[in-house]
Amino acid sequence: MSPSLVANGDIVPGVLTGRLASVYSEVQTSRIDHALPLPSVLRNPFTIVDGPPSSAAGNPGEIAKLFPNLYGQPSAVLVPSADAVGSDRELKIGVVLSGGQAPGGHNVISGIFDYLQVHVKGSTLYGFKGGPAGIMKCKYVKLNSDFIYPYRNQGGFDMICSGRDKIETPEQFKQAEDTALKLDLDGLVVIGGDDSNTNACLLAENFKGKNLKTKVIGCPKTIDGDLKCKEVPTSFGFDTACKIYAEMIGNVMTDARSTGKYYHFVRLMGRSASHITLECALQTHPNITIIGEEVAAKKQTLKNVTDYIVDVICKRAELGYNYGVILIPEGLIDFIPEVQRLIAELNEVLANGVVDEDGQWKQNLAPQSLQLFEFLPLAIQEQLMLERDPHGNVQVAKIETEKMLIQMVETELEKRKQQGSYKGQFKGQSHFFGYEGRCGLPTNFDSMYCYALGFAAGALLHSGKTGLISSVANLGAPVEEWTVGGTALTSLMDVERRHGKFKPVIKKAMVELDGTPFKKFASMRDKWALKNHYISPGPIQFVGPVADAVNHTLLLELGALA
Amino acid sequence: MSPSLVANGDIVPGVLTGRLASVYSEVQTSRIDHALPLPSVLRNPFTIVDGPPSSAAGNPGEIAKLFPNLYGQPSAVLVPSADAVGSDRELKIGVVLSGGQAPGGHNVISGIFDYLQVHVKGSTLYGFKGGPAGIMKCKYVKLNSDFIYPYRNQGGFDMICSGRDKIETPEQFKQAEDTALKLDLDGLVVIGGDDSNTNACLLAENFKGKNLKTKVIGCPKTIDGDLKCKEVPTSFGFDTACKIYAEMIGNVMTDARSTGKYYHFVRLMGRSASHITLECALQTHPNITIIGEEVAAKKQTLKNVTDYIVDVICKRAELGYNYGVILIPEGLIDFIPEVQRLIAELNEVLANGVVDEDGQWKQNLAPQSLQLFEFLPLAIQEQLMLERDPHGNVQVAKIETEKMLIQMVETELEKRKQQGSYKGQFKGQSHFFGYEGRCGLPTNFDSMYCYALGFAAGALLHSGKTGLISSVANLGAPVEEWTVGGTALTSLMDVERRHGKFKPVIKKAMVELDGTPFKKFASMRDKWALKNHYISPGPIQFVGPVADAVNHTLLLELGALA
Repeated sequence: MSPSLVANGDIVPGVLTGRLASVYSEVQTSRIDHALPLPSVLRNPFTIVDGPPSSAAGNPGEIAKLFPNLYGQPSAVLVPSADAVGSDRELKIGVVLSGGQAPGGHNVISGIFDYLQVHVKGSTLYGFKGGPAGIMKCKYVKLNSDFIYPYRNQGGFDMICSGRDKIETPEQFKQAEDTALKLDLDGLVVIGGDDSNTNACLLAENFKGKNLKTKVIGCPKTIDGDLKCKEVPTSFGFDTACKIYAEMIGNVMTDARSTGKYYHFVRLMGRSASHITLECALQTHPNITIIGEEVAAKKQTLKNVTDYIVDVICKRAELGYNYGVILIPEGLIDFIPEVQRLIAELNEVLANGVVDEDGQWKQNLAPQSLQLFEFLPLAIQEQLMLERDPHGNVQVAKIETEKMLIQMVETELEKRKQQGSYKGQFKGQSHFFGYEGRCGLPTNFDSMYCYALGFAAGALLHSGKTGLISSVANLGAPVEEWTVGGTALTSLMDVERRHGKFKPVIKKAMVELDGTPFKKFASMRDKWALKNHYISPGPIQFVGPVADAVNHTLLLELGALA
Repeated sequence: MSPSLVANGDIVPGVLTGRLASVYSEVQTSRIDHALPLPSVLRNPFTIVDGPPSSAAGNPGEIAKLFPNLYGQPSAVLVPSADAVGSDRELKIGVVLSGGQAPGGHNVISGIFDYLQVHVKGSTLYGFKGGPAGIMKCKYVKLNSDFIYPYRNQGGFDMICSGRDKIETPEQFKQAEDTALKLDLDGLVVIGGDDSNTNACLLAENFKGKNLKTKVIGCPKTIDGDLKCKEVPTSFGFDTACKIYAEMIGNVMTDARSTGKYYHFVRLMGRSASHITLECALQTHPNITIIGEEVAAKKQTLKNVTDYIVDVICKRAELGYNYGVILIPEGLIDFIPEVQRLIAELNEVLANGVVDEDGQWKQNLAPQSLQLFEFLPLAIQEQLMLERDPHGNVQVAKIETEKMLIQMVETELEKRKQQGSYKGQFKGQSHFFGYEGRCGLPTNFDSMYCYALGFAAGALLHSGKTGLISSVANLGAPVEEWTVGGTALTSLMDVERRHGKFKPVIKKAMVELDGTPFKKFASMRDKWALKNHYISPGPIQFVGPVADAVNHTLLLELGALA
């Protein structure tokens, strides 16, 4: 069933869906029927082969205690076989989107749906609405061909929407059980980031412990690119988001070079890890790139970061360049130890003391924190003092790091001008590229990768697996040769001590300073700093020779790019 | 001569140009050799036919006095003919980019160059560097095949860069004459907006008055889309810039619908006219769009605009939608009479009086201005008082209108919440889409249009025309059928009284409230406001079925779109 969609400005006829009465652009329309290749192992009869028993990423003893039913279970690999996997019994499967949007989520769902259509005809796919809360409240929609059709290869999560709730308390686990029983679920696919996949594993453990038949499979989603490991080479959405940001950065670079008078400070989404910033740097070759993990490893201060930027600006001015492009990760501030200390002290002061106009309150700050506070631009000082979250805490996330850096750079350049060591002109322009990238039309890579992830999740559930994360690898090769399987979620876990208890966590994959992507960047950044080696990646292309290109980070990590 | 460019990461070999040692993305590389079709009249032998004598857009008597040598001259049209235009004598032509970047500028230059290569072999093309200042200082580069090659179909103005200087004073005209004589220029092409084309016409008049052989031809450039008339249906760059912004807006819309909790306030470049905002609205169907020209025509206040937004937000909340997308033109504030008055009074106060902390100074404001000042969010009040330009004036351009509106909407919604007429949740997210759009890779339309404009400029100079603006029309038809000619710049002119003197101006083409694009928008906006009819145009495509689409504004104005 393929209700025909018509071009721009017309209404999708007769499709009773969440995108009812939606109008599609020509590009959207052209994407809907874009055929997706599958890895050859998914196109032919296959069976599932278990690997050796698994361990954990850290503290296996504690993980074993937290997951008595799942710990040690093997990862699984799909291999061609004449004996097809699973029975013909119809399945009832649920799927949920968890956390922030990432391009490709709709394709994971399409992949699950199509797997069931091809392999277990008559099965039912429930889409839980609004994230994990949909599971707990048993709010769902039954997905069928017509419903799914308009979302194929489309951005966003609006097919069933997402949410940030977690299933944590015994009551919440009970609610999830009730839903599983009520819908007679054979399986559940949780599409999410590190937290959501940890949650998926806890759910799998819980269901298994209660002898429920409901299996749980995770899928690696996040534009931030910080959920990955050997078996799961990348999270979906990263490729698309980076390419969207890189398009914008490339345009701004061309603008900078044409105008010759602006330094563009571009803050990029990605609070915990700097993968997006690093990838965008590799795609565009900016003059300056700040990588949070490096700042943390070198224990740099805000002054160090400012000085690094100012040094480059001064050297460029001597070469006649009074313009440039600077990339900054959204989470920069979180990587700077002294800022963390200042914030903690401010929260303390604000919670307990009186903030007097004369500034006597500042004596409650440690000398180093006071010095940092005074170093901050006035506007940022005010923002720190005035804007609080509902718990009364300073809202670090609201600080526009790019604007703060512009002001600090201005001040420092003014000093150097007076000292005679800088004779250039400086004008800063600030940008934040964030929301634009989370919901774009997925690239061909993300479209194919997500479809395979969904198909694989279907296969894993069909064969009765639980507590695995859908794993599609060998991504540097043509799609036909991609490998497919599931990785034991417990094998990705370590524990963290919180409130006196061990909590399981999938450790975020940070930028590795000895990894290939960072090393490639580090080997080139000095060259990029002084001369201009800007690259303008241009808009994402869906057809033509460049449409299937894959991001640098992935290719470098796979060893598929020099 | 086509030095081969290689894919991403590699250096352009052996091309000694301004983009020396540039690296090209795969998309950039794929664009370089993209063949551009020409209107059939430019592909075959043609001659130039003059139309009837022309008049002026207003005050023909004054225009006649200001342009005694040019006034009344006919526009010209290229028609097929066995007798080719112009002589075989080699020409010396200069070209200059004036004002802000617009995608396609490099293609205009390529078009001029290729015209000369094809029709007047051995001619010389000088690129004046850094805008009109390059003419005055005689700073130029001789353009050859190798130099131009890497810029074909590429964004930016960096081939010869641009500038905002004007040739105005007698001394400056003298400098331009000196350059024309020194380089023995047969012609000059000025690529720019309304001001730059007015300047081009003054230069043409001046050269003609001095009996110099140098002819001057203008080209319509501006992403703002406010330089157009019957003969010049659009300015180049508008198509690309709008498509880049619309891609971002479409992504943000999908994000809004997926997340369900943000109102995105998107400010769009375009200070004088709201064409960009209108075009983006037609491409994406936002919930709310503010068109400056309508605000001005209806003499709306900032409170009116705020109330309109708040009304829609309240109605949407009743329908369960606590999210949306709102487009705002960069120049909104300039369209509101009361804001203009307040700014004028503030400038007066700041210049003359003392601003006391108790606020006594406010008594110097007229009551209405005081009321508006108090209505503004505190941060904006502070910004108005603190940030001055070098002349001590309030910096209106620095006001982030989208953030100001978010705060005013928040305040008003809070009131309505207390009155019980609003029960929703409101979270604003601000965006400014500007620099990202000015230097993108030109769309196929802008690439072809600019190339034809450049080719036409070459033809006009070759046939000895001066004081015309290169005019390519019939743009709704296939490229082969585009018409080509030159329009008398004086026919586009009116006068403005400045410092007691009449100054010639090409009137900016504002959004016409009775024009087809606005009327189409106005007929649909109420539907868009309450339900969601979002369209996500997706990234610009260079190949495939959707690559040659043209923007709505142009098609609607041409009557080529219902």
